Amino acid sequence: MLPKIGIYKFDIESYLCDFKGNVRLSLIGDYILHAATLHAQERGFGYEEMIKDNCTWVLSRMVIEIFEYPQTNDTLVVETWVENVSRFFTQRCFRFLNQNQKIIGYAHTIWAAININTRKPIDILAWSPEISSYVGDIQNFPIEKNCKIPQVHNDNPVFYIVKYSDIDINKHTNSVRYMEHNMDMFDFSILNEKNIRRFEIMYSMESNFGDKLSFYKQEINPNEFLIEIKKEDVSICRSKIIWE
Amino acid sequence: MLPKIGIYKFDIESYLCDFKGNVRLSLIGDYILHAATLHAQERGFGYEEMIKDNCTWVLSRMVIEIFEYPQTNDTLVVETWVENVSRFFTQRCFRFLNQNQKIIGYAHTIWAAININTRKPIDILAWSPEISSYVGDIQNFPIEKNCKIPQVHNDNPVFYIVKYSDIDINKHTNSVRYMEHNMDMFDFSILNEKNIRRFEIMYSMESNFGDKLSFYKQEINPNEFLIEIKKEDVSICRSKIIWE
Repeated sequence: MLPKIGIYKFDIESYLCDFKGNVRLSLIGDYILHAATLHAQERGFGYEEMIKDNCTWVLSRMVIEIFEYPQTNDTLVVETWVENVSRFFTQRCFRFLNQNQKIIGYAHTIWAAININTRKPIDILAWSPEISSYVGDIQNFPIEKNCKIPQVHNDNPVFYIVKYSDIDINKHTNSVRYMEHNMDMFDFSILNEKNIRRFEIMYSMESNFGDKLSFYKQEINPNEFLIEIKKEDVSICRSKIIWE
Repeated sequence: MLPKIGIYKFDIESYLCDFKGNVRLSLIGDYILHAATLHAQERGFGYEEMIKDNCTWVLSRMVIEIFEYPQTNDTLVVETWVENVSRFFTQRCFRFLNQNQKIIGYAHTIWAAININTRKPIDILAWSPEISSYVGDIQNFPIEKNCKIPQVHNDNPVFYIVKYSDIDINKHTNSVRYMEHNMDMFDFSILNEKNIRRFEIMYSMESNFGDKLSFYKQEINPNEFLIEIKKEDVSICRSKIIWE
């Protein structure tokens, strides 16, 4: 049996960085999904095994805290482990280190598994009993895992049509693309002067090619924003973003 | 001295693929830039060396032909070499192979080098005489390198404001983001039924955060399209896209 914890390294190339030379938060999102994919695949409950049964993993919630952003030529080390598994959800933790083994952040994710044809949840424990043997509360995990994000109050949405680049192999808008759309709602001044310290997102519905979405943003406290993405008045995802 | 040709391997993970399971053309664009970056860096004329002198490489033109798209779990092998260098431009070739050593495409790029403060071209041969020693016409190169792309005729542009995710470490819209915006101008039917066989792009001006751009598309022949991106009536980049 492989160790419960999986460790993956990513080299930060300049073309992966934003205008400040920081790795983009959405790229950290990509690395989270990639590390989760590899960890699950190596242990027999990954995408390739699921798709044989017409199933796939779907990200339901994610919290990311970054204390120090990796920059060009840095290496980001992503550690991940399964924290918990129940019938319809599994929880996975992440710890981020830089090349000097300094802890620079954490993330926590909640996943469901769905049938790709019915889009309905499947029973995870029935599909993969072996996932339970990898559950372990391995590292000290100091960040708040909960994300309860209220409805956003704003009457002036930005409209957006879902395009080719938004859609992934699961034929819906990729979870990380919502993060990019979130980032793109901020002004240059805040992007230039501050970094996102904490990012929370909860996904409640899928969107597909050609869907007309509305993006709503609300500042609830200084440096604290909510963003909601809706399709015809139904919430697709909500985020809470804290800058510092 | 390192060999003239550089060989780089990229693993195609599922989250990097489009809704058909094909690697996105824009990702091939990323790999082209990444392979060029590594090749130049290893040979002493890369981004890190240039930035010490306040200079950077800027992509001027690119042609990509793909005969067979890599899919999830494939490995893409990118070979690159410097074909030519003159005072203000250097030309670089790419050959793409799959994991079975089958040639699946080619690309050709033309680069300028600019001072990041004045945004004016610098003399490449004066800056790095050693680049000349790596020039070599190494592989048979069967695709048409020229890209002369005419002005686009269309009176109904799509408008777009340049956002955070568009801007890279050079503080302008990333070359590959224009490719994504190009792809996003096509309907589902053509994206679903065909693949891009040949993609040409020429960059003539930079765009920056907050710029209002207009995207124009014109079908000049069956399966053959032109796209032009303008800022206040000045051309930023033009593309020609052939589907098959």
